[in-house]
Amino acid sequence: MAIITPSRRVRRTPFTQGVETAGVTSYTVYNHMLLAAQIDNFVEDYHHLKRHVQIWDVPVQRQISIKGNDAERLMRLISPRDLSKMQDDQCFYLPVIGADGGMLNDPVAMKISTDHFWVSLADSDFMLYLLGVSDALSLDVQIAEADIAPLAVQGPKSEDLLEKLFGKSIRDLKFFRYGTFNFEGRQVYISRSGFSKQGGFEIYVEGDDYAMALWHKLLSEGEPLHIKVGCPNLIERIEGGLLSYGNDMRRENTPFEAGLGKYVNSPDDYLGKAALLKRPARQMIRPIAIAGEIPVCDRVWPLYAENRQVGQVTSAIFSPDFGVNVAIGMVADSHWDAGTTLEVDTQEGIRKAEIQAKFWI
Amino acid sequence: MAIITPSRRVRRTPFTQGVETAGVTSYTVYNHMLLAAQIDNFVEDYHHLKRHVQIWDVPVQRQISIKGNDAERLMRLISPRDLSKMQDDQCFYLPVIGADGGMLNDPVAMKISTDHFWVSLADSDFMLYLLGVSDALSLDVQIAEADIAPLAVQGPKSEDLLEKLFGKSIRDLKFFRYGTFNFEGRQVYISRSGFSKQGGFEIYVEGDDYAMALWHKLLSEGEPLHIKVGCPNLIERIEGGLLSYGNDMRRENTPFEAGLGKYVNSPDDYLGKAALLKRPARQMIRPIAIAGEIPVCDRVWPLYAENRQVGQVTSAIFSPDFGVNVAIGMVADSHWDAGTTLEVDTQEGIRKAEIQAKFWI
Repeated sequence: MAIITPSRRVRRTPFTQGVETAGVTSYTVYNHMLLAAQIDNFVEDYHHLKRHVQIWDVPVQRQISIKGNDAERLMRLISPRDLSKMQDDQCFYLPVIGADGGMLNDPVAMKISTDHFWVSLADSDFMLYLLGVSDALSLDVQIAEADIAPLAVQGPKSEDLLEKLFGKSIRDLKFFRYGTFNFEGRQVYISRSGFSKQGGFEIYVEGDDYAMALWHKLLSEGEPLHIKVGCPNLIERIEGGLLSYGNDMRRENTPFEAGLGKYVNSPDDYLGKAALLKRPARQMIRPIAIAGEIPVCDRVWPLYAENRQVGQVTSAIFSPDFGVNVAIGMVADSHWDAGTTLEVDTQEGIRKAEIQAKFWI
Repeated sequence: MAIITPSRRVRRTPFTQGVETAGVTSYTVYNHMLLAAQIDNFVEDYHHLKRHVQIWDVPVQRQISIKGNDAERLMRLISPRDLSKMQDDQCFYLPVIGADGGMLNDPVAMKISTDHFWVSLADSDFMLYLLGVSDALSLDVQIAEADIAPLAVQGPKSEDLLEKLFGKSIRDLKFFRYGTFNFEGRQVYISRSGFSKQGGFEIYVEGDDYAMALWHKLLSEGEPLHIKVGCPNLIERIEGGLLSYGNDMRRENTPFEAGLGKYVNSPDDYLGKAALLKRPARQMIRPIAIAGEIPVCDRVWPLYAENRQVGQVTSAIFSPDFGVNVAIGMVADSHWDAGTTLEVDTQEGIRKAEIQAKFWI
């Protein structure tokens, strides 16, 4: 049981006091900020998320603002995904790479206007890569961490809740699209998105003067819907195959290995294109079921076939709904077919593992 | 009291088991890795550090290897400090900036050879900036997180301890110089450096196969010297004026504001030079004494003079040896003179603060 020492460097968010009041039981640190990992515990949070509605304190999804005459040029330089058809109200999941084709982050980009993008980061300071490229090429663009604190509303009753605050038009918002709505006279961006498979929205709170007012309003309006403070849930994300940068893929992996090949389609000469297209995946992300009792997955668990390592598990936990340990791992092409049985080496011993045809959704 | 949820993303180090065995009581997360913040507690760790010798698990100081024909060119592009006189066995403290002159990290660079540098990072993924610059300019250089785990030996008896393991020549190592030594047949780099003012060394353990063997050897040889497992100590670092990137300065600050103007002397056209030289410091890091009882400094504490904000405190804790709350803050030029009294707004109320002439060393 490891305690986090408080410091300014591990930043609080505008909603941290809300999470504390809800009795958060454990945190992680993500982009130098506190992120709740369990409110009650993984299992209770999980059952509730699948049935009701939760609000999540997720400003750890740091919003990088890229603005200026060269904003689109910079975006095209760093994007393996074709941005030419991106609409002004669209969110794009965007695996980003360096010159060797290795992944540096997997943000969601939002196009605010032709010369203005937001990039919502996973856990690495990808802003520094944007700055490095921009500084080296003297691009005409301002890059900054915007003063925006995303608040996620997730779970099957999310739409019911947001209709109460923002009106019926919230129901017209399509998946991975955003719109502007009104909260007590303030314009707020809301997208239909979020790090769960239960449906929901992300609200982009600019400035922190109304952050807790919105938080409390959601809690009070959500009371009849059994709302709870929640957080991204480890069980639900593994079941759903939602990858976590830093856990499931890193700079040593390409988007192909991460199973994100469909997002590699840009006709532009983006940085890393030549190297990436020469690196077909010899290993790939796979859903894996593990038998028996398993410890906490806090390190890489090698996967073996006949004493030869053929992959690794990087996320794993017991799923109450599916009655099995659900896991995400990277497996060599020789052993990645569904039904293949392997051995996984946890810190508490060897367990049987089996490659699945699909995630638990 | 916040608990850290274990995951691969918040990485263990090759020495984490040693810190766990020592009974670590709290961690922080630094460069996506676990860093012990207290073994017993701040005060006991502090008294011991000033009297004896400690070993610290500090692979969080990620070593970025920059190697290739353009390695020196890249280093000169990103360095406000004149590297022309840097010797092959020398360590250079290096505030690094972006094109606007704002600090992105404050690593220690080591010159391994003319085409090979190591950069030992503070808490930001500055490797991504190096990659961005290198990718944009197609430099002939390999940039990677090296498989090197620094282990610090700190405290007044550090030299006595290292002499036992590495021989008398360790005493000839000058401050911020490194040499190569032998541990059980392995060549190891050792520098006279470390994040305390008590003297000591950093050992760069390559690979993790002998990491714990070295750890145990240091503990057993150090027994007569009252060795303990320790970690960077919050009280001692504030007393000594050792700045912490992310706490005391960030991208919004220049090296001048951080009091690091003496490291801004490169004749080269480094990125950010023009902007930096146009930003003289209108505020600067200052040692600050705070009266009364203070809470944990886990957020910015604004400093006021006659109800106008004139600065902020970013690190603060009670010092047993000096009998006062020692603090680090950034103060406007109108109020930065020693002896100036201000008010500091903590989360538990206003306290009196006074600018000091120097840190507590």
